[in-house]
Amino acid sequence: MADPLSREHALERDAADPLAGFAERFVNTDPERIYLDGNSLGRLPLATRDRLRELVGEWGDRLVSGWPEWIDAPARVGDALAAGVLGARPGEVVVGDSTTVNLFKLCSAALDLSPGAIVTDRDNFPTDRYVLEGLAAQRGRELRLFQPEAPAGPQPSDLEPHLDGAALVLLSHVSYRAGALADVRALTALAREHGALVVWDLSHSAGAVPVELSAAGVELAVGCTYKYLNAGPGAPAFLYVAEELQPRLRSPIWGWFGQRDQFAMERDYDPVDGVGRFLAGTPPVLDLAAVEEGVRLTAEAGVDRLRAKSVALCDLIVELHDAWLAPLGFSLGSPRDGARRGSHVSIRHDEAWPICRALIERAAVVPDFRGPDSIRLGVAPLYTGFADTWDALDRLRRLVEAGEQRMVDATRARVT
Amino acid sequence: MADPLSREHALERDAADPLAGFAERFVNTDPERIYLDGNSLGRLPLATRDRLRELVGEWGDRLVSGWPEWIDAPARVGDALAAGVLGARPGEVVVGDSTTVNLFKLCSAALDLSPGAIVTDRDNFPTDRYVLEGLAAQRGRELRLFQPEAPAGPQPSDLEPHLDGAALVLLSHVSYRAGALADVRALTALAREHGALVVWDLSHSAGAVPVELSAAGVELAVGCTYKYLNAGPGAPAFLYVAEELQPRLRSPIWGWFGQRDQFAMERDYDPVDGVGRFLAGTPPVLDLAAVEEGVRLTAEAGVDRLRAKSVALCDLIVELHDAWLAPLGFSLGSPRDGARRGSHVSIRHDEAWPICRALIERAAVVPDFRGPDSIRLGVAPLYTGFADTWDALDRLRRLVEAGEQRMVDATRARVT
Repeated sequence: MADPLSREHALERDAADPLAGFAERFVNTDPERIYLDGNSLGRLPLATRDRLRELVGEWGDRLVSGWPEWIDAPARVGDALAAGVLGARPGEVVVGDSTTVNLFKLCSAALDLSPGAIVTDRDNFPTDRYVLEGLAAQRGRELRLFQPEAPAGPQPSDLEPHLDGAALVLLSHVSYRAGALADVRALTALAREHGALVVWDLSHSAGAVPVELSAAGVELAVGCTYKYLNAGPGAPAFLYVAEELQPRLRSPIWGWFGQRDQFAMERDYDPVDGVGRFLAGTPPVLDLAAVEEGVRLTAEAGVDRLRAKSVALCDLIVELHDAWLAPLGFSLGSPRDGARRGSHVSIRHDEAWPICRALIERAAVVPDFRGPDSIRLGVAPLYTGFADTWDALDRLRRLVEAGEQRMVDATRARVT
Repeated sequence: MADPLSREHALERDAADPLAGFAERFVNTDPERIYLDGNSLGRLPLATRDRLRELVGEWGDRLVSGWPEWIDAPARVGDALAAGVLGARPGEVVVGDSTTVNLFKLCSAALDLSPGAIVTDRDNFPTDRYVLEGLAAQRGRELRLFQPEAPAGPQPSDLEPHLDGAALVLLSHVSYRAGALADVRALTALAREHGALVVWDLSHSAGAVPVELSAAGVELAVGCTYKYLNAGPGAPAFLYVAEELQPRLRSPIWGWFGQRDQFAMERDYDPVDGVGRFLAGTPPVLDLAAVEEGVRLTAEAGVDRLRAKSVALCDLIVELHDAWLAPLGFSLGSPRDGARRGSHVSIRHDEAWPICRALIERAAVVPDFRGPDSIRLGVAPLYTGFADTWDALDRLRRLVEAGEQRMVDATRARVT
């Protein structure tokens, strides 16, 4: 058997990978480039490219007569996501609006049920914190920000001291910087014992980490589709409300797509039963088709197989980090234990930003940067291979050994 | 000269139409079909089909490195819309989210400034009314619904009695059923005299009727891009805030795309100056490209020329209605005076719904139906011709003369 850290071994693992064939189902215009930023923006599936072309044609051809089919897309794609990716039941998920808008809807609806405080962690994604800051200001609620220990992410023991009198807790399943995986079941149960509702943000887990919403007792969740679900830049987000909670909740945004007998038009607002009451305006038909294709591909591969491969790839990054990068001044910014990590590994370095630039410009490796000092290496198990990962780390160590991070212009603005 | 109501005369007018060439810049897979529903969903421009294909390719090729260009699209497309279509200044318009979500944002922000009542008209579009019902319930505000006289739409004299103690008025520039055109300048000035802010919904006017937001003293507006702006099913909406008002207003949805120095990520929420503070989540990149192409086409044709043609086409519908349809039991559901009408004409008939079905199924004419008894005939001056219009009305009269509306299944559900 080859040395476990050799390229030869990585090639053997690719040869044995049951998901290896999926990489060919994505557009790849530059085989030399190693893309480790699928946790920011996923690749374009061939099926999506074809479907979008078809759907644009359908708009041109069918015009308004296409609506009877298009109109069901938020619920249809939501059901596919529920069954294939989220471990939820039919009628519990819809797709539409952005993650931010959906966070606002669910957090606002949860606050309607109880007068207490709002809780989240300081390391939560910025837009999650901003939405809560806004709601706290508008409703005169206390906003409690607790500091989880890095890189482990929020633990029950971190959360518990902040739950007295709390109405709402907002947590991310996988933390965007460290990639820490939260214990959804334990944290949800703890919050419920204290009478608080939890909204889970699944943006950095959906499609790469199993999410068993029903089994874990989750009541509310949102998430992004343009990362591991590969639905394209700015694709619409999803929103989940457990069936039991649906009758008690109302969206703050009362819109015609949440209205019973929508095209009667003459009546006062009377929301539909079910999660559809959280829809607002006209659904983005092209985008929903892209989400549908991305979900189909993920479900076909199977979240459990994707998770096994993702853990193996991230473990390889950790092992190569220890062997090659730690001596160059890097440290691990993610949990070492694969069971407590999502699908990306953060490595930290004082020159993280120029190293990121140099990787992109001089080594054809695409990671991303998160301030102040983290380089995120995201693996998308649908299309990232073991040799890709080995090569990326190899290029990274050579680049830093040669000091190439000092040969790039690191003053340019950071975007995404 | 030919008889003014003859097909020959319609053909002469097409030959003299300076905008006639624009019809060829749209996909038209069925030249026999006459599409009079561009006020619901506009046609697909060839440029948009090509641009979407290109942009999907750009996603596949550039991946996350596309963001530095994509990220400016909400403001860039907003500025194009401001200059070419809305008569607004740079930095006053952004594109993103649905009309419903944007209505919610602006109405909510306006209510933050003043504790008074909310006013709209009973004939306003359903989602506009629902958003206000929701805000009134959430904030304990009085919702005043006044009844304008049909088909004239809201007049200053209708509005004035409801303005004492009002904080917010929401009105549509063109009413969705009757097509009545409101006097934006007079109604805005009247509301301001009473201390109320007006939010204008431009969904049924933008792209077909001149909208001079700055000149008319408008402070707040939203509108749809998938009607006369031809941006595709469910394309994102726009939002306008007059420069003077921007520093005083905050979106209720605090999101990372409205945050100053967005990618610093560590700070508390601090909204950017300008209309960008009303952005929330990640912008839909493909959709924004479609809006950009639609706006470009409209601006190239020129709103004034589009308006002149639209009025002429609608006048022809009224004349043919009087000559051919009134004797068959139709009545006019829109203002007779072109200066007080948008870009569609509603005609009323007791059998409106089966007549609509029969027109679509048996006569290849596509109007739409609005309950209880209105058939909307929308003209999109970019691609609707005079002979098209003549032929549509001719097919309609023949169909009703033959009683074909009794030969269709009119039980199927109405969608859109």
